Amino acid sequence: MGVRGSGRSRVADTGRYPGGVTFPVVGMVGGGQLARMTHEAGIPLGIKFKLLSDTPQDSAAQVVSDVVIGDYRDLDTLRDFARGCDVITFDHEHVPTEHLRALEADGIPVRPGPDALVHAQDKGVMREKLMEIGVPCPRHRIVRDPADVAAFAAEGAGFPVILKTVRGGYDGKGVWFVRSVEDAADPFRAGVPVLAEEKVDFVRELAANVVRSPHGQAVAYPVVESQQVDGVCDTVIAPAPGLSEALAGEAQELALRVAKELGVVGHLAVELFETPEGRILVNELAMRPHNSGHWTQDGAVTSQFANHVRAVLDLPLGDPRPRAKWTVMGNVLGGDYPDMYAAYLHCMARDPQLKIHMYGKDVKPGRKVGHVNTYGDDLDDVLERARHAAGYLRGTITE
Amino acid sequence: MGVRGSGRSRVADTGRYPGGVTFPVVGMVGGGQLARMTHEAGIPLGIKFKLLSDTPQDSAAQVVSDVVIGDYRDLDTLRDFARGCDVITFDHEHVPTEHLRALEADGIPVRPGPDALVHAQDKGVMREKLMEIGVPCPRHRIVRDPADVAAFAAEGAGFPVILKTVRGGYDGKGVWFVRSVEDAADPFRAGVPVLAEEKVDFVRELAANVVRSPHGQAVAYPVVESQQVDGVCDTVIAPAPGLSEALAGEAQELALRVAKELGVVGHLAVELFETPEGRILVNELAMRPHNSGHWTQDGAVTSQFANHVRAVLDLPLGDPRPRAKWTVMGNVLGGDYPDMYAAYLHCMARDPQLKIHMYGKDVKPGRKVGHVNTYGDDLDDVLERARHAAGYLRGTITE
Repeated sequence: MGVRGSGRSRVADTGRYPGGVTFPVVGMVGGGQLARMTHEAGIPLGIKFKLLSDTPQDSAAQVVSDVVIGDYRDLDTLRDFARGCDVITFDHEHVPTEHLRALEADGIPVRPGPDALVHAQDKGVMREKLMEIGVPCPRHRIVRDPADVAAFAAEGAGFPVILKTVRGGYDGKGVWFVRSVEDAADPFRAGVPVLAEEKVDFVRELAANVVRSPHGQAVAYPVVESQQVDGVCDTVIAPAPGLSEALAGEAQELALRVAKELGVVGHLAVELFETPEGRILVNELAMRPHNSGHWTQDGAVTSQFANHVRAVLDLPLGDPRPRAKWTVMGNVLGGDYPDMYAAYLHCMARDPQLKIHMYGKDVKPGRKVGHVNTYGDDLDDVLERARHAAGYLRGTITE
Repeated sequence: MGVRGSGRSRVADTGRYPGGVTFPVVGMVGGGQLARMTHEAGIPLGIKFKLLSDTPQDSAAQVVSDVVIGDYRDLDTLRDFARGCDVITFDHEHVPTEHLRALEADGIPVRPGPDALVHAQDKGVMREKLMEIGVPCPRHRIVRDPADVAAFAAEGAGFPVILKTVRGGYDGKGVWFVRSVEDAADPFRAGVPVLAEEKVDFVRELAANVVRSPHGQAVAYPVVESQQVDGVCDTVIAPAPGLSEALAGEAQELALRVAKELGVVGHLAVELFETPEGRILVNELAMRPHNSGHWTQDGAVTSQFANHVRAVLDLPLGDPRPRAKWTVMGNVLGGDYPDMYAAYLHCMARDPQLKIHMYGKDVKPGRKVGHVNTYGDDLDDVLERARHAAGYLRGTITE
């Protein structure tokens, strides 16, 4: 009775509908595919969705009814957008931290909040915090010039060294693979802070995805294996094949601890390296729905998008357990064929269980324009179906 | 290779993107919850969705970006709306048959087409056609006055008799339960044709749902049990408990035959009576996604909404098989509490696997404003969870 008693008025008491409905408005900053899929997940809950998008052609702007076109870097635009929203959340991590603090000062709940989000915005802040709370990371150091890089390498990391701009990089952008001190000049040309990290000798990449709500409830999805091609996520397998229960539990516990210690609200993706010694090291953090969680749309009881919405609204979270023995997500990148719709006939006829998720983006070579999910009991079969469909849509497979 | 060769141009051939994308525009007439959920199912396919809605407040109009506000009974409005749509389909069956023929004459594919849809619009035409193709129906006759009703009863059906206006009724509206000739005057006052049907002695109601595409592919969902309260669907159980394989197969075969013989394109719901003798009789037809198929959103590999979209676009259909041993759908009707959002806390905390689907409608007593789906291995548990959630949202259960 507790909830009912505290929140609901009975019509019969007054003979009318007191106050009407209170379905909240979720404001999402950024019009990419994550916003598109979060909107899709919000529809069944009756949640009202408001979008701040760069252009009307953006992925989410095509399918959301309440769209504001504007620049998230402009505080006045953000403030105007936030009026009438019950909570603000994000498609990306690029909103300046000080703007988020200003919105909070205006009384708008921002989830995740700026104090959490800065760890996903600034890789230097992220590494410092993770070390402070005892989370295993690759060796790393903020470096100011190539000489610093050489010193970092000499003190134990060795070459090659990974250099990353502390802000703004993703999907291989803002990241340099440096084999010698002579290679190390480029990253410093922009004059922004650079983080040096050792090149970790890993057997594979994993991701531990969790969702946390403001009152502290949290759920952990099964740990997945993420396969990259040219620095871009290509395939995700859920759960990670052959991962020991101990290491899976350790990864989930680590992600839950990071979410709690950093005060994350919403979906947190912790990208991990699994080392030959069976250790895990944190690679990156993302505080939003994440590519490594797209499998949950068709493979879990509650998708990452639905749980992100529930978390930012401080609703009880949904069951994160898998619905199939194996689920595989294959990213669809733009290739030589601009018209992916023409490929639907073949893909759908070949595999009636295939789940296609397209983002409404124009095809450009290498651009993520969609993904497919497959699931079943036989991993080889599930993998083959996902890879075939992703390859056929891209045009690298033609039969 | 067949599909690829016939439809796709390779960028490399020309050095640019020839023709760009061909993702089609589906025009949906009617802004109710069926349109809302069809839009939701179209988003992952990248299908563009255009809506003709009575008001901007309609269920689907709240979540679709491309909405035309207008009256579907006006041919000019329909024609304007249809321009730029690759195909027209429906949230309801109320568009005048002659308007659909006019759109077809304009060259717009209408799916289902008027020759099929008339069987869902006019119960007289429906009964005549079903008898012609040998599908078992209750005794019935078009009647002109109470004397006709008395004659119909005397010739074998007996009282009570069900009287239905041949057009426009649904959810118990336009339907009279007549116990004697003295009761039979009301239905004739409007001066519209009336169909008399025997009151079938049934043990339960079933629904056989199928989807058919223009090139003749068809899929059949498991036959479900549909439980009505006061003439409105309350609970759907998939599959129908205890239904023999033989009768289930007969019902599916019957629905597939009706779809084919009537030329249906899209989702067809065949509502059935199961008699004490183990026979099935056709009660009603609906040529659109249907309440008895809402369970497929969470309980089948491909939902009725996704398959309806695929069918009207003549794409290969998705797998209709169930994903769980049992799935139960519970309709959420408006009750005494106007604010269902306040009930989310309790419902979601009690059952983390619960799937809520709300339609964005204002609560009015007895109005369908949403539904819930539950699934699992234990039917009693799955039923209890659906009934609890639907009752709590409505306000008839308060703990």
